Amino acid sequence: MTDDADRGDDAEATSDGGDDREGTPPREEFRRDPVEHASVRAGMTVGELASEYGKAGIGAADLAEAAGIYAEMLGREDVTNFVGLAGAMIPTGMRRIVAELIRDDHVDALVTTGATLTHDTIEAIGGKHHHGRQHGEGSLREHDERLRDEGVDRIYNVYLPQEHFTLLEEHLRSAVFPAVEAEGSVSIERLTAELGRANADRNAEEDVAEDAGIAAAAFENDVPIYAPAIGDSVLGLQAWMYSQISDFSLDALSDMTSLTDMAFDAEKAGALVIGGGVPKNYTLQTMLVAPDAYDYAVQLTMDPEHTGGLSGATLDEARSWGKLEKAARNASVYADATITFPLLVAAARERISK
Amino acid sequence: MTDDADRGDDAEATSDGGDDREGTPPREEFRRDPVEHASVRAGMTVGELASEYGKAGIGAADLAEAAGIYAEMLGREDVTNFVGLAGAMIPTGMRRIVAELIRDDHVDALVTTGATLTHDTIEAIGGKHHHGRQHGEGSLREHDERLRDEGVDRIYNVYLPQEHFTLLEEHLRSAVFPAVEAEGSVSIERLTAELGRANADRNAEEDVAEDAGIAAAAFENDVPIYAPAIGDSVLGLQAWMYSQISDFSLDALSDMTSLTDMAFDAEKAGALVIGGGVPKNYTLQTMLVAPDAYDYAVQLTMDPEHTGGLSGATLDEARSWGKLEKAARNASVYADATITFPLLVAAARERISK
Amino acid sequence: MTDDADRGDDAEATSDGGDDREGTPPREEFRRDPVEHASVRAGMTVGELASEYGKAGIGAADLAEAAGIYAEMLGREDVTNFVGLAGAMIPTGMRRIVAELIRDDHVDALVTTGATLTHDTIEAIGGKHHHGRQHGEGSLREHDERLRDEGVDRIYNVYLPQEHFTLLEEHLRSAVFPAVEAEGSVSIERLTAELGRANADRNAEEDVAEDAGIAAAAFENDVPIYAPAIGDSVLGLQAWMYSQISDFSLDALSDMTSLTDMAFDAEKAGALVIGGGVPKNYTLQTMLVAPDAYDYAVQLTMDPEHTGGLSGATLDEARSWGKLEKAARNASVYADATITFPLLVAAARERISK
Amino acid sequence: MTDDADRGDDAEATSDGGDDREGTPPREEFRRDPVEHASVRAGMTVGELASEYGKAGIGAADLAEAAGIYAEMLGREDVTNFVGLAGAMIPTGMRRIVAELIRDDHVDALVTTGATLTHDTIEAIGGKHHHGRQHGEGSLREHDERLRDEGVDRIYNVYLPQEHFTLLEEHLRSAVFPAVEAEGSVSIERLTAELGRANADRNAEEDVAEDAGIAAAAFENDVPIYAPAIGDSVLGLQAWMYSQISDFSLDALSDMTSLTDMAFDAEKAGALVIGGGVPKNYTLQTMLVAPDAYDYAVQLTMDPEHTGGLSGATLDEARSWGKLEKAARNASVYADATITFPLLVAAARERISK
Repeated sequence: MTDDADRGDDAEATSDGGDDREGTPPREEFRRDPVEHASVRAGMTVGELASEYGKAGIGAADLAEAAGIYAEMLGREDVTNFVGLAGAMIPTGMRRIVAELIRDDHVDALVTTGATLTHDTIEAIGGKHHHGRQHGEGSLREHDERLRDEGVDRIYNVYLPQEHFTLLEEHLRSAVFPAVEAEGSVSIERLTAELGRANADRNAEEDVAEDAGIAAAAFENDVPIYAPAIGDSVLGLQAWMYSQISDFSLDALSDMTSLTDMAFDAEKAGALVIGGGVPKNYTLQTMLVAPDAYDYAVQLTMDPEHTGGLSGATLDEARSWGKLEKAARNASVYADATITFPLLVAAARERISK
Repeated sequence: MTDDADRGDDAEATSDGGDDREGTPPREEFRRDPVEHASVRAGMTVGELASEYGKAGIGAADLAEAAGIYAEMLGREDVTNFVGLAGAMIPTGMRRIVAELIRDDHVDALVTTGATLTHDTIEAIGGKHHHGRQHGEGSLREHDERLRDEGVDRIYNVYLPQEHFTLLEEHLRSAVFPAVEAEGSVSIERLTAELGRANADRNAEEDVAEDAGIAAAAFENDVPIYAPAIGDSVLGLQAWMYSQISDFSLDALSDMTSLTDMAFDAEKAGALVIGGGVPKNYTLQTMLVAPDAYDYAVQLTMDPEHTGGLSGATLDEARSWGKLEKAARNASVYADATITFPLLVAAARERISK
Repeated sequence: MTDDADRGDDAEATSDGGDDREGTPPREEFRRDPVEHASVRAGMTVGELASEYGKAGIGAADLAEAAGIYAEMLGREDVTNFVGLAGAMIPTGMRRIVAELIRDDHVDALVTTGATLTHDTIEAIGGKHHHGRQHGEGSLREHDERLRDEGVDRIYNVYLPQEHFTLLEEHLRSAVFPAVEAEGSVSIERLTAELGRANADRNAEEDVAEDAGIAAAAFENDVPIYAPAIGDSVLGLQAWMYSQISDFSLDALSDMTSLTDMAFDAEKAGALVIGGGVPKNYTLQTMLVAPDAYDYAVQLTMDPEHTGGLSGATLDEARSWGKLEKAARNASVYADATITFPLLVAAARERISK
Repeated sequence: MTDDADRGDDAEATSDGGDDREGTPPREEFRRDPVEHASVRAGMTVGELASEYGKAGIGAADLAEAAGIYAEMLGREDVTNFVGLAGAMIPTGMRRIVAELIRDDHVDALVTTGATLTHDTIEAIGGKHHHGRQHGEGSLREHDERLRDEGVDRIYNVYLPQEHFTLLEEHLRSAVFPAVEAEGSVSIERLTAELGRANADRNAEEDVAEDAGIAAAAFENDVPIYAPAIGDSVLGLQAWMYSQISDFSLDALSDMTSLTDMAFDAEKAGALVIGGGVPKNYTLQTMLVAPDAYDYAVQLTMDPEHTGGLSGATLDEARSWGKLEKAARNASVYADATITFPLLVAAARERISK
């Protein structure tokens, strides 16, 4: 037997976890709740898939937990549902799922971006976003230069012809801004409701779009839409330009009154947060000025936690601030929201339909 | 009208895309293939969800495309299916899905890590991984120090009691290594087959595990398992320690012969790559020494592309190397594989069952 | 010679790149600009390090390019410098670098978040953020519950005692809001200037903080601070609460007038964008209503591009929208901004000091 | 006063942290170690920058700590330095920094990939990698198809003409493989040493490269290079092809003997881990079969932790396995290694040169 073999033998003991621990299995707390293994089959429902995720770990387990929480949020009568919606979710095809949640009374307040409303309205008046897989000639930079020449805006791999912004401007200037101009400084919530009305009317007249969209559904179901950073969008730029030639103006703060009222009045409060940014924080921070906090919170995000920014922050961090109840049920899923959002909604809908 | 209002008016024209472009919509190539919007309903199947993803963008569209490609890979008789499997997929509950794919003849060759085989075998002989949500007292570091004291290894949020490594060692030394010791320098493929046989035998005798697992399924279905970096694992450490007290030795290169043979013989070749690392590259690089390349390739990964490393590299990059046919169908989904892998398999199974 | 050996030999030819290409090296365009190799030595300056980065690839090359562009932005008299600042940059120690850039006339307009101003002011009136490496007893969730009990807010790994928010409220209600209350609906820019004045005054009186901070420096140097989503912060909540008991109100849109004026007046325009979110987009979108666009743009971000969101979007994408000139110099560095921002500023300062 | 104003007033109390906590500041443990603010100036050294990072948070603080630890690893005579090197660090310009660390006696063992040795050798025999910013005509996919036609391999944004692989093959078959062919099954370490000798000889003869590189430096300084997954690379494919027409064969396990010996003999052991994959795990796992564990560990990585994979795992997790001493000093920097690696080395070299 060589020296090396000796070392091999010694090592063996070491790899056992050390002699001193032999026969002393770790405490029960480290040995419970075994990971099972997911199983899938042809024709299974999305709800069944979500249950299988529950056996597994990492993101799958988080998604299963999120689906359970979201089903409870949707299924209980006493939960007021706040939704924070950020990111390029309209250009990437998530518009109908949000609109249908609103129409089915699953949203009580929507906090979103000016860009979401911009792109929602573009489609409401007949515009389209286009899959832009072809990146064109030359380098990436040259391709974007060419898009510029062609009058096409790029949103990652989606193309948006700029002509739609001209049509948007006409819609806003004829059907939206004038309707609130006489009211003095209006709340953002008031403007977004008027936008929803105009989008709904436009479709009632002409049926230009397959789906009148999020703002229209919210208007028709009396769901307020908050867009605290509305200035930060083409919609906001248009609003500003209109304010230069009219009496129109927007109040930056007054939305908080009705949003906070809603938080005060909620028996139970739930938050579904898709993406980060202002919609996430604004949805959560409401509880800093309310007596209670969220009882349920589900977050779907691709923003990494380790940037330290609010967008990627865990919901546990929100608990330290008092944005979530200490006893709240919460889950964060760190994965592509275009995949997880439809899956979450389908699974939660299945669960409550039973 | 103020100067600012003037500017607002000028700006308006600018936001139209510029006068010179007015009335000249962008070329057809930038206006085709509109993004539709996904819709979900209670009770829909996973295959139906995957179809809805196909209407959308970003990762959802990629996943829909991946499901279509993978269904074709599984459904066509003439496709030889290579699977690269990396990452903590056993500790996180993906073991049964892989084993069932093997049992249903959907895997012709598996390239994986020593760690995958280590954890697969631990479960095959009755061990368990445990959900480790509770991170314990003190700081994170102190928690890991405590786990060390308790004899528990942590894999992200999964706990593995070290006692299982003792049982693994006994299994390897009694049922696996001695069986090949007399054969001289054996290929890694030979060792993994013997491991599969031993795991299957153990379960046939005692039924210690719910599922005999990946290595056992591969053995029983004559599917070779390649683990080119086998030394880089507890299984590899055990193999080395055994080699110190026996004639056992492993050949680092000879697996390539049968793997390359399989690539030569494949009418059509398809690669499903889960995670990055050695399994990804080894699966793909085989085509550098084969006359043809992959006709199909699907990649599920969380490794970011912009590190420049192979793990996150696109499959288009692999095309520049000749690892994929120029005409190959390929899709990469950058999202949590514990979510996307079950979803992909369920959707593809549904499609081919029709 | 076996069959396998034959295959080995065949393969060899294949690995050469194919017979047909032998002797035909790739076109010149694929063979220029070789990657050199960085070299480092004890005592080298940050500017020298940035030059070494220029020899390398991936993020290092981007950082070298960004340093060159930023040096040109700072060094040329005719460049108007817009800075977008998002993320937890104050709690993580970047406050002084921003304040010093302002004091040295390197910032002409700052677009930031309400949170940045909140945390900047907390430090201006004597508060501190604390390194929170110790995550406490119990699970992570339990730790956050405990922080809640202790009255400590967590920002990733930074702790902020809530008592500072009481002091902030006193400061705002005594020294900031009353000063603008009589002016009717004020612009956000007006409020942030008043905040800067109050922070500067407080330090002039008592010298409570080592550095009076960003808002104070901006006030003292006539640099406007835009915070379009100011409502989305504790500062915004305080402003709203004050508006409930006073005539104070904020105009959501009017900032755009002076920001757009600045874009109109700029001979050359440069953007330094740190983090994503509203500050990034608002900084860039200004050019949608200006006759020209950015001539220089540098972005430091950890937001991944492949979410499709604006935060991670490349600056080339911004070119398709006309936010950047087609001929603009631009660079994006995808890495931790607490590392890259000090490095960029030190390297650019070194370059222009020569 | 309206109801809303009342609520505003109530809210105010809530935002104070609650009446019950008023006057009770959080315990000392949550109030110590304040975040300071970094400051930078023209002409500062990299070591000074690293010190400034130490005042800040997130990645900057981690990098400052890493620099301190690495300086101690390099400065103490009694530390045996293990380096794990993965990722595309040669194509991206990090080759000279590694070679110079070896030449200056700062590396005692190097664990790396076959790809690293492949690219190092290509440059050692006169080849070059090229910046590939221009992505060519057509879509990204079409660009890669064109690269394929041109005989150019792409590594993210770096181009490598395939002709270099022909020259590599000639070098390996004339100067490397034959030299060890007669020795029977050789260890990987033996092969990499021979590679280093051949690369050094080639440069001694002809001076074809600016720097003979990593393998050459390791050979000349008696530093062993371990590449446990050597088969997973073009170097490995070449080795396999040569094994088909010769007696050459490689032993998959025997390297562990000398690596483990080194771990046994180390008074203090330190690990610098760049990137993830096999080099990371193999470097760390050695301690599973050694009596002690790493006393120092620094990790530079872009692999995200939340994949659950080993590549992104924290070094604290390694502590639970016993790969790090409980009392070890360790730091992980999650940022682009092409930026952090040169910075770390420059700062550590500065510190020990004083």
